[in-house]
Amino acid sequence: MDPVQIEDQPIFDMRAVSEQIFADLAATSANSVGITREAYAESEQAALDLIRSHAERFDLKTEIDAAANLVVTLPGKDPDRRFLACGSHMDSVPQGGNYDGAAGVVAGLVSLARMRSEGWVPQQAIKLMAFRCEESAWYGKPYIGSSALLGKLSEVDLESTHRNGSRRLSEALAQVGADTARIAAGEPLIDTQSIAAYLELHIEQGPVMTARNLPTAIVTGIRGAIRHRKMTCRGKAGHSGAVPRWLRQDALFATAELISTLDEHWQILLERGLDIVVTSGIAETNANVHSMTRIPEEVSFSMEIRSQSVDALEAFYHLMRTECTNIEKNRRVKFLFDRRLFTSPARMNETWIERLMDISRRLDLPPETIPSGAGHDAAVFANAGVATAMIFVRNDNGSHNPAETMAMEDFFKGTELLYHALKEPI
Amino acid sequence: MDPVQIEDQPIFDMRAVSEQIFADLAATSANSVGITREAYAESEQAALDLIRSHAERFDLKTEIDAAANLVVTLPGKDPDRRFLACGSHMDSVPQGGNYDGAAGVVAGLVSLARMRSEGWVPQQAIKLMAFRCEESAWYGKPYIGSSALLGKLSEVDLESTHRNGSRRLSEALAQVGADTARIAAGEPLIDTQSIAAYLELHIEQGPVMTARNLPTAIVTGIRGAIRHRKMTCRGKAGHSGAVPRWLRQDALFATAELISTLDEHWQILLERGLDIVVTSGIAETNANVHSMTRIPEEVSFSMEIRSQSVDALEAFYHLMRTECTNIEKNRRVKFLFDRRLFTSPARMNETWIERLMDISRRLDLPPETIPSGAGHDAAVFANAGVATAMIFVRNDNGSHNPAETMAMEDFFKGTELLYHALKEPI
Repeated sequence: MDPVQIEDQPIFDMRAVSEQIFADLAATSANSVGITREAYAESEQAALDLIRSHAERFDLKTEIDAAANLVVTLPGKDPDRRFLACGSHMDSVPQGGNYDGAAGVVAGLVSLARMRSEGWVPQQAIKLMAFRCEESAWYGKPYIGSSALLGKLSEVDLESTHRNGSRRLSEALAQVGADTARIAAGEPLIDTQSIAAYLELHIEQGPVMTARNLPTAIVTGIRGAIRHRKMTCRGKAGHSGAVPRWLRQDALFATAELISTLDEHWQILLERGLDIVVTSGIAETNANVHSMTRIPEEVSFSMEIRSQSVDALEAFYHLMRTECTNIEKNRRVKFLFDRRLFTSPARMNETWIERLMDISRRLDLPPETIPSGAGHDAAVFANAGVATAMIFVRNDNGSHNPAETMAMEDFFKGTELLYHALKEPI
Repeated sequence: MDPVQIEDQPIFDMRAVSEQIFADLAATSANSVGITREAYAESEQAALDLIRSHAERFDLKTEIDAAANLVVTLPGKDPDRRFLACGSHMDSVPQGGNYDGAAGVVAGLVSLARMRSEGWVPQQAIKLMAFRCEESAWYGKPYIGSSALLGKLSEVDLESTHRNGSRRLSEALAQVGADTARIAAGEPLIDTQSIAAYLELHIEQGPVMTARNLPTAIVTGIRGAIRHRKMTCRGKAGHSGAVPRWLRQDALFATAELISTLDEHWQILLERGLDIVVTSGIAETNANVHSMTRIPEEVSFSMEIRSQSVDALEAFYHLMRTECTNIEKNRRVKFLFDRRLFTSPARMNETWIERLMDISRRLDLPPETIPSGAGHDAAVFANAGVATAMIFVRNDNGSHNPAETMAMEDFFKGTELLYHALKEPI
């Protein structure tokens, strides 16, 4: 059974409209390997303009908010009621795919357009927010557009420079007409009390839904992180043939022991039901001096722990530091740490999770939940106290690369879920 | 008592000459942290030229052999007699010390110069050989200069590339005028039957003599090695937050497990009395794509196993390959191996060991023996059937690093031992 049943809608062909918008969006980024929609630049602007013109074609109200994001509104019967929001972001990473961000914007747009074409008027307004600059690839920090709107950027954040060093975030914001004075003051540009809920559809950025055969899923929370960009293990160099094991201070064997030990802890904690992922994405001996016949005196590596739970993050971090101390003692090496970076996890709203699971059941979609390993604008809303929920759509090959791919059938299922979630009385 | 008694030699001040040559050598590598004498490059050439000009100053005959090594000769009374050789190598590792290799060359030079200045003419010629490219740091394989001379390089060896990928060994050899056609054919460029013995003085590259308080010692044997310059663990990239442990194919966690497991095997085999050292001197994620938030799909690393026993080498190598296969299965990664490099362990000549112990006793030096953990050109001579012996000189802080240090008093003691060994009738 196909729960979408577009064939029953003579007025609005959601499939054709969605495919057309995705094709138009891809065409605005024609000069890139994969898709590049640069935040606060021509390619992101072209995508926003495209969404705006489609929205106007569907007789929806459009405006630009004080943080220069696009807002599309389906007005409600009662202007005093708190509005329902959906949305996602319009930018992409350099050489990314067409769906990371855009899928949620298009899903919101076709949902609102469909309601309009059906002549259905909600009690409260429903707004689609198409955010700029969600990707940290551009200015180092993620969620810029939504954070600016909710008053969550600091003056220090505004001093962040573009990845190519060409300009500061404050200049980029000013250039697109954002109210940088209010943003710098940390002033919310919207009353969060006026938002009944924020719903975001997004492609999954990992392989779990493909592995579990889930076209759609409901997000329980967004993982936070504790990170060190650079940890260094310092031992002592020596001739690889001439120093016996008991006299070695091998930084690589020490680092290998740390990672293997953390892997064992990780396995045990997963068995106990904790949510944790651990990654060391960068690791290297010192290229200036390393050689096959030299016991390495230095290994530098990144360390990232993510979890939906602050307690799990802190517990694992504590374990990591303890193991470093143990290894230091046994192997006569030293671990050095750069600044610890903390990103708060975000919990999705329980009522909305239940609501989405219920609608999924009725639409014959899997009422399954998964955590979000990647960050999203939804985290900003959740941490600002707005009831927030997310719908994930299955996506092969991960995201942030040109091979990112989403089946349109899966997108239609996710959009159907969003449409009904926005339409049901709240 | 000082057994060197240089004060009795009015003509030749070995101390002053040695110190001057070491200072001159250090000055040829002035732009480096520590000492860098790159094989078949400007810095090695400058060092060889310096030794040659000192040798000529001392009225010794010099020539370049067909493998582009420097040969310094003190002619003997009987040109038909098999000659006695001493020597060591002129290159260093990147950012190494001033004595690894050079000590043996300088010891030979001052020994020959002293004989010349004393007007002493040996029965048979005595030759000092200053080899190029003993360090595997440059082209992956050690003992290139001595192996080329003794016909022990293969065509495959000549295809080895420089550590920075800039050129092949064959090109490097051709550029310094070596006879690459004969070398590639595996043709000995010298008749090993014409060599009565090869003696090499070298600094110890480990901490044993310092620990045992031995200024000099006599080597019993040299560890051989099995090596891979580059092993690669290939997994699959992924978003660091979005891929759970069970779906990961993390190349770094796999490599860490391999190294930690080998470390456990190593410990067990040491307890059983086997002679083994294991080193991975180079390890790195792929710098073109790695990032803190990306599961690393590739780690490349070197692998070296050394032992005085061929059986121990092969047993440990087999263990290593078995563990790779286990990890491949468990973690869905793949280990790739470049060419396996084998260096045979070498036994020193018993008669010469006895002779050196006897001279040591007479010079009031310790008649003590130790194994050599590091490889040396002496191993090539021993494995080519030449009677070979080595004198070790105490050295603090290991070698292959800028902190390598040898007390000149210890050097003088070792040189005195070499001088007498070369001078006694054979």
